[in-house]
Amino acid sequence: MTNPSTPITNHYVALVKLELTDGSLEFIESFAQDLITDLELKIVKKISRIFHSKGITLAFILSESHLLIHTWPELGLIHIDLVTCSYRGDKEFKSSLKAALSEQNIKSIEVKSVNFD
Amino acid sequence: MTNPSTPITNHYVALVKLELTDGSLEFIESFAQDLITDLELKIVKKISRIFHSKGITLAFILSESHLLIHTWPELGLIHIDLVTCSYRGDKEFKSSLKAALSEQNIKSIEVKSVNFD
Repeated sequence: MTNPSTPITNHYVALVKLELTDGSLEFIESFAQDLITDLELKIVKKISRIFHSKGITLAFILSESHLLIHTWPELGLIHIDLVTCSYRGDKEFKSSLKAALSEQNIKSIEVKSVNFD
Repeated sequence: MTNPSTPITNHYVALVKLELTDGSLEFIESFAQDLITDLELKIVKKISRIFHSKGITLAFILSESHLLIHTWPELGLIHIDLVTCSYRGDKEFKSSLKAALSEQNIKSIEVKSVNFD
């Protein structure tokens, strides 16, 4: 969001395609923690859900907004939705994603930015 | 997301500008519930946070993905982030937002769609 009348600085959505060898809640929570630490964000609250498909949804309220992660292990997909009120660049976001998934075989990472004029 | 190899059907982000006469958690939860009911979605888990600014963050894990709501009462803004795995059209989303805020003085509603090819 670029309008100075609004406090939202960044909204990024990423789709990661990878060989998700470990789709467990522990692994996804560890990935989320690494991402949050690397981006110097702060967790306020979190909830998670494991679905019948083995897919996981993790929702974090951050002191600077939110991070949502969904996994589809059967498709080798992780969807990441990050809103921050403090500035993070798209390259920084992508770099932090790569770092947090450095031990995975990443096929692609697409990042979209959501902006309101 | 339009790629059939992914299960995500819709990702909408809305920014609503309005005269937010009641910025309480009760009102925002009621708004969220009306929106979820109108869109025929189902809540799995939720968390909320009231910030020092009186802004509120509400995070819902849905059976079809997630809904995140942030408010900035001092700016008269509500930010809504909805991901669903079952189809909802952008007009349906905007119409449900209007219905859930029908008693508020809405100045504008902008809706963005996030798509991965």
